[in-house]
Amino acid sequence: MQQQEAVRPIRIALLGAGTVGSQTARLLVEQSQDLASRVGRPLQLVGIAVLHPDKVKADWIDPSLLTTDSADLVTRADIVIELIGGIEPARTLLLKAIESGASVVTANKALLAQHGPELYRAAEKQGVDIYFEAAVGGAIPIVRPLRESLVGDGITSLVGIVNGTTNYILDEMTTKGLQFDQALRDAQAKGFAEADPTADVDGLDAAAKAAIMATLAFHTDVRMDDVPVEGIRTITADDIAAAQTEHRVIKLLAVAERGEQGISARVYPALIPDSHPLASVHGSFNAVFVTAKAADDLMFYGRGAGGAPTASAVLGDVVTEARHIVQHGMGPGIPMYANIPMAPLDASRAAFAVRFLIHDKPGVLAAIAQVFSEAGISINGVNQDIKPTLHDPGYSGEIQQLRVVTHLCDEVTLRQVVERISTFDSVTGQASILRVFDRQAQ
Amino acid sequence: MQQQEAVRPIRIALLGAGTVGSQTARLLVEQSQDLASRVGRPLQLVGIAVLHPDKVKADWIDPSLLTTDSADLVTRADIVIELIGGIEPARTLLLKAIESGASVVTANKALLAQHGPELYRAAEKQGVDIYFEAAVGGAIPIVRPLRESLVGDGITSLVGIVNGTTNYILDEMTTKGLQFDQALRDAQAKGFAEADPTADVDGLDAAAKAAIMATLAFHTDVRMDDVPVEGIRTITADDIAAAQTEHRVIKLLAVAERGEQGISARVYPALIPDSHPLASVHGSFNAVFVTAKAADDLMFYGRGAGGAPTASAVLGDVVTEARHIVQHGMGPGIPMYANIPMAPLDASRAAFAVRFLIHDKPGVLAAIAQVFSEAGISINGVNQDIKPTLHDPGYSGEIQQLRVVTHLCDEVTLRQVVERISTFDSVTGQASILRVFDRQAQ
Repeated sequence: MQQQEAVRPIRIALLGAGTVGSQTARLLVEQSQDLASRVGRPLQLVGIAVLHPDKVKADWIDPSLLTTDSADLVTRADIVIELIGGIEPARTLLLKAIESGASVVTANKALLAQHGPELYRAAEKQGVDIYFEAAVGGAIPIVRPLRESLVGDGITSLVGIVNGTTNYILDEMTTKGLQFDQALRDAQAKGFAEADPTADVDGLDAAAKAAIMATLAFHTDVRMDDVPVEGIRTITADDIAAAQTEHRVIKLLAVAERGEQGISARVYPALIPDSHPLASVHGSFNAVFVTAKAADDLMFYGRGAGGAPTASAVLGDVVTEARHIVQHGMGPGIPMYANIPMAPLDASRAAFAVRFLIHDKPGVLAAIAQVFSEAGISINGVNQDIKPTLHDPGYSGEIQQLRVVTHLCDEVTLRQVVERISTFDSVTGQASILRVFDRQAQ
Repeated sequence: MQQQEAVRPIRIALLGAGTVGSQTARLLVEQSQDLASRVGRPLQLVGIAVLHPDKVKADWIDPSLLTTDSADLVTRADIVIELIGGIEPARTLLLKAIESGASVVTANKALLAQHGPELYRAAEKQGVDIYFEAAVGGAIPIVRPLRESLVGDGITSLVGIVNGTTNYILDEMTTKGLQFDQALRDAQAKGFAEADPTADVDGLDAAAKAAIMATLAFHTDVRMDDVPVEGIRTITADDIAAAQTEHRVIKLLAVAERGEQGISARVYPALIPDSHPLASVHGSFNAVFVTAKAADDLMFYGRGAGGAPTASAVLGDVVTEARHIVQHGMGPGIPMYANIPMAPLDASRAAFAVRFLIHDKPGVLAAIAQVFSEAGISINGVNQDIKPTLHDPGYSGEIQQLRVVTHLCDEVTLRQVVERISTFDSVTGQASILRVFDRQAQ
């Protein structure tokens, strides 16, 4: 019995053969000997479910493995790898796989950010594992450190650059002085942004990752709907130029924090100091900066997307799970015992940099300062000297930029102030609001 | 039976109550409720072995737990945490713990770098786990990513700043223009360097970590004796000033690479570009930069030492192992199936920056260039303009600095050239040899 089992391969089912799926299949085939040595038993790819088998062209994929019957395939495997994305049919297929006793590996952040806890509980009930390293930060090991390495510590905050498209666009705006629209078009032309860029530039992709990380870090069910989101569409080349004069850069951050009033998970563009380790995360790279009570500051950095890097994370999960199967063991589970509430929006205080476009007439600055003052928000600095860039569509001759940096204040009040000022006749265009992220790393 | 087991606590034995040991005890006591929730069963500290129980002063340590009989204690636990350091009695105690059926968690890099494979095999034979996240990079999760996250990928190189003392000293030399001796004295005064700094400044501590990481990354038995070491004693303020003019910084690197002729694991000071993510690792922080075939570049950053950060890594291992015990599972093991040979020293080629101290007479440069040329080493640049700093003990009026940067060459030949040039009457003091680490991260 022992010996028979020793030679029985571990059956792997793959759902999807797109960019990540085909690279995952490649690694499974090309490294099969190494993987067998690391696991202690061979891994056998028993099927690949796709919608159109005739469209799969990868040399390393044996056509006889292709099937359109994904519902059948998930019942014939020890490990099901889900790389089709989206909510359905992914959710139903994974629940069916779990019910059939398979462990699952997925890179599906949208699914996990909405239905993760349902899947985690189903897996726990059935006594199988669910791994999803590739769902956050691509190749970067961040899920495993949160689930295991830091499990004896108390995480206080996570700050991540977890969307490569927006980081690439902001980087291009910074290094080339481009406006957002131009940088987006360039990114689309180069394949770094989708034709419909909404999920990326409006921060939804980052919000999904923030929800997943917050659930792991705080042992509490946090969903994407719990994460307020601001994207990067309102950021102008002027905002970036102004930041540079203060030795800061603008990054889209996914932030999850545990405060006295509960958990706050947010996505917003923020100003961070040049000297912060996150400031040197360029192009399509990702990084997550974690602070824990005992461990202090940690950062995890790497390729946040791409077929091969994401496939590397998927394979790491597959091998880990395969070893559990060989040893009759199990992974760590996703305990959600803490049930910490979400903090109200006005619970945390921050400094903000607000940029208004104004018709520069006498008294405008005084009127604006008055509104801040009446709301009890102290102003740290005002800058009206920043030159408008040539390409800014919001500018004509008489429009100027006024930048107000506040001391710490609550966000709800700040937004009320900005809204009121935006109704002034002398104020035009859309104000941009950026948080000033001033926690120093060291 | 099931129910009885559900309430039986997991017994933890702690060896050592020094800086890390006492912080580990604190986290076990203070977070006991959270830890029990995360594990699914309470963790019970059953004893703390120390040499002098009367010297243990921590408030949170129950004196009745203290014992001097470590050999007995290791047989009374499910998990033994070893934080006493050094080879013996740590090695004998851990082997005894394993033999008694306990899993072990250790932060002992010196032990693992010399006897790790013996311990890994003993644990495998006995069916218990050995975890050692804290042995490399303190709080930084690097061991677990190497053992698990990247196990489906092929690691090609690891480049780490894994010694906080030397990184602090080099940082002080860079920012304050200090010479090595002064920076070392300052570091000693502030507690960042030991009274006997040999293990740190001569690179031995980094070599131990390089051996441990190489074993994990390449699935091959690599020991500290396999790791040639150069420390930072010969680095002068001038070397650093010269590097700055080239937009480079000097860092002590632990490097492990897999090349065509085998594995190379080394510790040496090197010049790295300002723009490389490792360049912004300051003070006592550590980081490890990993390159894998599919994942591409990754970096792991955090506190490399200190009681609480190291204890965080220890606790992560303890909780992971405790969960395995609850679920009757096991960790991933340390497969060493690959048996890749160590590459010969001249297998890899690098560019070098060599600094000579010379009596500046006509013909010196020509004579030096001639030796390089005869050995077949091309010179990329020569710099004789660097001003000697006031505090450099090697300088008096007539001594100048000559810096030669080579193209790629093999190290054995380079060292022969430097040795030959050092015999010239016009050459004095000790030459410094720095590798130019020019792989760009992105």
